[in-house]
Amino acid sequence: MTTQGQVITCKAAVAWEANKPLVIEDVQVAPPQAGEVRVKILFAALCHTDAYTLSGKDPEGLFPCILGHEAAGIVESVGEGVTEVQPGDHVIPCYQAECRECKFCKSGKTNLCGKVRSATGVGVMLNDRGSRFSIDGKPIYHFMGTSTFSQYTVVHDVSVAKIHPQAPLEKVCLLGCGVPTGNLSLCFITGTLGLGAVWNTAKVESGSIVAIFGLGTVGLAVAEGAKTAGASRIIGVDIDNKKFDIAKNFGVTEFVNPKDHDKPIQQVIVDLTDGGVDYSFECIGNVSIMRAALECCHKGWGTSVIVGVAASGQEISTRPFQLVTGRVWKGTAFGGFKSRSQVPWLVEKYMNKEIKVDEYITHNMTLEEINEGFDLLHEGGCLRCVLSLHA
Amino acid sequence: MTTQGQVITCKAAVAWEANKPLVIEDVQVAPPQAGEVRVKILFAALCHTDAYTLSGKDPEGLFPCILGHEAAGIVESVGEGVTEVQPGDHVIPCYQAECRECKFCKSGKTNLCGKVRSATGVGVMLNDRGSRFSIDGKPIYHFMGTSTFSQYTVVHDVSVAKIHPQAPLEKVCLLGCGVPTGNLSLCFITGTLGLGAVWNTAKVESGSIVAIFGLGTVGLAVAEGAKTAGASRIIGVDIDNKKFDIAKNFGVTEFVNPKDHDKPIQQVIVDLTDGGVDYSFECIGNVSIMRAALECCHKGWGTSVIVGVAASGQEISTRPFQLVTGRVWKGTAFGGFKSRSQVPWLVEKYMNKEIKVDEYITHNMTLEEINEGFDLLHEGGCLRCVLSLHA
Ligand SMILES: NC(=O)c1ccc[n+]([C@@H]2O[C@H](COP(=O)([O-])OP(=O)(O)OC[C@H]3O[C@@H](n4cnc5c(N)ncnc54)[C@H](O)[C@@H]3O)[C@@H](O)[C@H]2O)c1
Ligand SMILES: NC(=O)c1ccc[n+]([C@@H]2O[C@H](COP(=O)([O-])OP(=O)(O)OC[C@H]3O[C@@H](n4cnc5c(N)ncnc54)[C@H](O)[C@@H]3O)[C@@H](O)[C@H]2O)c1
Ligand SMILES: [Zn+2]
Ligand SMILES: [Zn+2]
Ligand SMILES: [Zn+2]
Ligand SMILES: [Zn+2]
Repeated sequence: MTTQGQVITCKAAVAWEANKPLVIEDVQVAPPQAGEVRVKILFAALCHTDAYTLSGKDPEGLFPCILGHEAAGIVESVGEGVTEVQPGDHVIPCYQAECRECKFCKSGKTNLCGKVRSATGVGVMLNDRGSRFSIDGKPIYHFMGTSTFSQYTVVHDVSVAKIHPQAPLEKVCLLGCGVPTGNLSLCFITGTLGLGAVWNTAKVESGSIVAIFGLGTVGLAVAEGAKTAGASRIIGVDIDNKKFDIAKNFGVTEFVNPKDHDKPIQQVIVDLTDGGVDYSFECIGNVSIMRAALECCHKGWGTSVIVGVAASGQEISTRPFQLVTGRVWKGTAFGGFKSRSQVPWLVEKYMNKEIKVDEYITHNMTLEEINEGFDLLHEGGCLRCVLSLHA
Repeated sequence: MTTQGQVITCKAAVAWEANKPLVIEDVQVAPPQAGEVRVKILFAALCHTDAYTLSGKDPEGLFPCILGHEAAGIVESVGEGVTEVQPGDHVIPCYQAECRECKFCKSGKTNLCGKVRSATGVGVMLNDRGSRFSIDGKPIYHFMGTSTFSQYTVVHDVSVAKIHPQAPLEKVCLLGCGVPTGNLSLCFITGTLGLGAVWNTAKVESGSIVAIFGLGTVGLAVAEGAKTAGASRIIGVDIDNKKFDIAKNFGVTEFVNPKDHDKPIQQVIVDLTDGGVDYSFECIGNVSIMRAALECCHKGWGTSVIVGVAASGQEISTRPFQLVTGRVWKGTAFGGFKSRSQVPWLVEKYMNKEIKVDEYITHNMTLEEINEGFDLLHEGGCLRCVLSLHA
């Protein structure tokens, strides 16, 4: 029996309201409309962005909704006009779209596609500005244009990357968010951050000194990228000593726990490095650590990159003198990767054993256990927990 | 009668204490020690940094001192070991030294030489950590390693640029600070900011949209640089409408006076430019305008450069989201120019009529009239006032 063109009823974890456990429900998933793709999600990982929205602190969070944005699956059916994927294709949904037509995509300078943002930002699909999810006729909002905590989801065609059919979906689901976000440094340190096709020819600075604040999945991926680029010292900063052992496998060469020091952490790092680091990365989402990450950079050239996402309304600050004396402050979303073009390339890099993925997976669960997965996120010791959606 | 090796008694404008008029005094200027150069200053311009320190708001300001850092003159004598200049050479004193030996100079990434900073920062010379200026035996502090409001001054050899002997000193004195600081954009927009010899090969982005906040000497020099780089729109922002007419001659194509708008100025610029500018420059020294300058940049790639110097203790802030969505925040000192290497090159560019200098000089005075010159600075309408030291 074909499901194409039909409403599919399947299991999904629904966030009915902020700061309450998710509930596994039978959800109706409408067929894809023009420019849309319905995907059978096989594996989905939990990320802090899901937890943040669930907590109610995200002012743009809408409820009820289906969370999840780091996943892999198989195309079930496609809507009118969809040409780049077809039923049976293995795919990774991408919260960062890539339409190749908008001002942003065409600029060659950024991966922040603008095509579907007006819809995904408010939990609906662009075609009719409605939802494809409902329960007994009551619509349930989409989330980040992905909503992967559902056995079936509907995404925009510009938000789906077709990957190698042999790639293990239970692993490469991580390439939907955390690992590329961190591995930005692969690109960043080689001077290609966010440049997409227009690869910059700036030199790879092997020998650089790098500081990474926060050694979760994102921070560890930064470490891996920095190691690949040939960094001479990779200083990992975390308040959780348990992170230090595992971080060694990702290239971190030195560890600093701010709790062991009375001095401000930026001063500790400046002292350790005879004036500061060449590059620093904030992978926590804490605005005072963002400041420390900038201020531990070397005068004259140090560059600090914000990767962590701070709670809404919070602000970063510093003395302008920090910038006038040559430091640079920037940030990145999804590591600057162009999603549809580069996620498949990352998948192949993984298959060729050029980047790690398996090492980030500390837990495996079923969809039914999703609330336990969120508890793990808050407890530390967990990098990524992968859910099997059809177990 | 030779003055070499002798103490010279000459006129200088002495700042005896903060926020009081300068007093023209007979000052004793000791001969240069090892690594030092005594310079007969012929012309000196007034800059806001002098006014700032004189106001008493600069926590590092030391009194009594001799201010001034934008000047030109002729070498009178040199101390032991000085090989790169000799008596009779035409020179521009440089508050930004260039030793070519320290970590900063060698990096090829910055113009912030570290060699004499520990001395110039506290108003003395490196050799004996003493002053070469005195009045009846009482020492008077140096300022910025230059102290050009004196008929004779002593500077470190790493702080003096030898220039073309035919260059008109009454004009090129401006190349000691304000014009290069702004003309940074000449280098910046062509991707060579602060790279010294290692000229970057990034493309010149002709067609860029640029916003300049503050149309004083520095802001106008930015406009000139942006025009040279081929910017398609150069939006000048100032609260002084008188600046708009003159700014047209420097390439500014559109004017915005924040006083004419109810909306925040960043929003006004974003609306004018369909999403924001490619580059913005803050040339005022106001931390809330620094924020506006960042926030009026285009998402995905806009870069904002802080050139203005804020009052001590003030901080810049923004939401980290501004950076995570692709804006870059940086700053520059002396336009990123390497002083001894590049000031002579700027002088020749001026002599070849490739950069403007004369157009910034709105007033000429004698040393005796220096206090009137400072009054003009505060009144607006004045770009640069040049003092003749031996009139
Ligand atoms: N910019 C993007 O595109 C993007 C994408 C995904 C995730 N993120 C963000 O990246 C950040 C990191 O994500 P993750 O999945 O690695 O999170 P994580 O919670 O697994 O890792 C954070 C680490 O920071 C440490 N930490 C917390 N407070 C600290 C402090 N004050 N000092 C030092 N260390 C501290 C924790 O012990 C933990 O090891 C989050 O803010 C997340 O929202 C950003
Ligand atoms: N980074 C460096 O190396 C360096 C070197 C020299 C000067 N500077 C700094 O650059 C800045 C500009 O120097 P300048 O000599 O051109 O000064 P200036 O006073 O001649 O010019 C400043 C301009 O800003 C305008 N302005 C003031 N407040 C404003 C506001 N709120 N909104 C819009 N416009 C406003 C004024 O009307 C004026 O036209 C100063 O802060 C100075 O200290 C920096
Ligand atoms: Zn995520
Ligand atoms: Zn796009
Ligand atoms: Zn100056
Ligand atoms: Zn030096």
